[in-house]
Amino acid sequence: MNDLVTQVQATIDGPDERLNTIVGLLVKHLHAFVEEAEPTEREWFAGLDFLVETGQMCTPHRNEFILLSDMLGLTTAVDDVNHHGPANMTPSSVEGPFHSPAPTRELGDWISFGPERARATPMVVHGKVLDCDGTPLAGAVIDLWQANDSGLYDSQDPAQDLGNLRALLTTDADGHYWFRTIRPSSYPVPTDGTGGRLLKAVGRHPMRPAHLHLRVTADGYRPLTTHVFLAGDPYLTSDAAFAVKEEIICHPVRRPEGSDRWRLDGPHEEIEFDVRLVPEDWSAE
Amino acid sequence: MNDLVTQVQATIDGPDERLNTIVGLLVKHLHAFVEEAEPTEREWFAGLDFLVETGQMCTPHRNEFILLSDMLGLTTAVDDVNHHGPANMTPSSVEGPFHSPAPTRELGDWISFGPERARATPMVVHGKVLDCDGTPLAGAVIDLWQANDSGLYDSQDPAQDLGNLRALLTTDADGHYWFRTIRPSSYPVPTDGTGGRLLKAVGRHPMRPAHLHLRVTADGYRPLTTHVFLAGDPYLTSDAAFAVKEEIICHPVRRPEGSDRWRLDGPHEEIEFDVRLVPEDWSAE
Repeated sequence: MNDLVTQVQATIDGPDERLNTIVGLLVKHLHAFVEEAEPTEREWFAGLDFLVETGQMCTPHRNEFILLSDMLGLTTAVDDVNHHGPANMTPSSVEGPFHSPAPTRELGDWISFGPERARATPMVVHGKVLDCDGTPLAGAVIDLWQANDSGLYDSQDPAQDLGNLRALLTTDADGHYWFRTIRPSSYPVPTDGTGGRLLKAVGRHPMRPAHLHLRVTADGYRPLTTHVFLAGDPYLTSDAAFAVKEEIICHPVRRPEGSDRWRLDGPHEEIEFDVRLVPEDWSAE
Repeated sequence: MNDLVTQVQATIDGPDERLNTIVGLLVKHLHAFVEEAEPTEREWFAGLDFLVETGQMCTPHRNEFILLSDMLGLTTAVDDVNHHGPANMTPSSVEGPFHSPAPTRELGDWISFGPERARATPMVVHGKVLDCDGTPLAGAVIDLWQANDSGLYDSQDPAQDLGNLRALLTTDADGHYWFRTIRPSSYPVPTDGTGGRLLKAVGRHPMRPAHLHLRVTADGYRPLTTHVFLAGDPYLTSDAAFAVKEEIICHPVRRPEGSDRWRLDGPHEEIEFDVRLVPEDWSAE
């Protein structure tokens, strides 16, 4: 700890202890960055100008700092430090910017109503919501949202009505859920801003592997927000947002025939994904 | 180094090696901050919103991120890593936002022409520009700027003409310089933005101790930008911008009588400040 850090930290003495701690640690780690990177003045002020530009391109509907946080793996890091639990819990994964209120659906319903339904690969998704000890949880609510086969969410795409590829489902008495949808596509994060410029400058692609988003809630359990990724996607090992975890990659099974069970009358894919929630009162001790 | 940091750093592979290094180190230290501070998601996204707001209040004439950098001691840290030199060199100190082109003056000239001249304490400033081995440097140029007795620079104050309390002076054959001015006042950094809000939240005052700014150049020597602080100022130990260093604090001497030597006809203060420049080819080895 150098003298300057000590000197800055010594001035921090506000009424909110938590804020004092956060600002003091920010000082410590940003100074450690300066000591190790030894930026020239030109580099430093170019960095500050980059932050100004990032702020100035934000709108009520676009927060470019969240994109920067995502693409540096920081959103995932924050997610990780906030979701400790038993080893077999379903890990959480970042929410991203595309969540919005979903229509309530029945188990087995289609959730795809746009033009993608006629052209994309049909997919059935099913599984159970469980306690980490394996007890099925009836009445758990799954809020789900996904992009279409062009990688677009309803709010980004004039061809989709709001609510398309979204649903609120409730598990049955066995903790089971299922729905019919289409296979989502991988897609790029927005590249027309400072985040995209930075990705390009450091030689990175902007792609996120294909996925569905789930937020699962059940009485007495911690809410879980996570992704379901599809095995085989070429971007699984290089997600621009670093949200992939081994436990939330599913293996789609190709079914060349229709299925009475899933009420699908032709070739489709099937994925099974169980969710294990952590009791609210769980503690590592 | 955790897995996520390794994973993010492994994606960085752009054509500019220096940028790769900087971004890689930024990732390392920001993740270390997240690991140690363990921000909740609410805290993290509040922090990102604070950055958005900071960017959105910037104008071509105001860069609030520079203020944040100053008040966290980061500008001084960047200054320090860029100015290594012999132990007896005059240390550099941050430039701040108020530099602008100054009028050329003769040695001994008054540099105060506004209403402050009639009410403030007259002050003579003199000294030498030297090599670190003590050789006087003739023809060195000193660019100086300061606030008035209300803590305002010309560009902030309709009562001052542009160029007031600024000068370009050239040292004489003995390396000597002198000028007549008025004692500057301490002043607050801007408090009407996110920087001011953060200062208040962590219980800090916004004041900078009274000072003059100097930028000194001489052929064959590294340019030096520094401050001259006035001993006795109540904010010397708590400069909001952390720019104070022991070697650049001067002790004003009160002179109750006029002085023929300094062409001052009444009570005044005198400060002596020698500047030791570092040869361009200086190296620690």
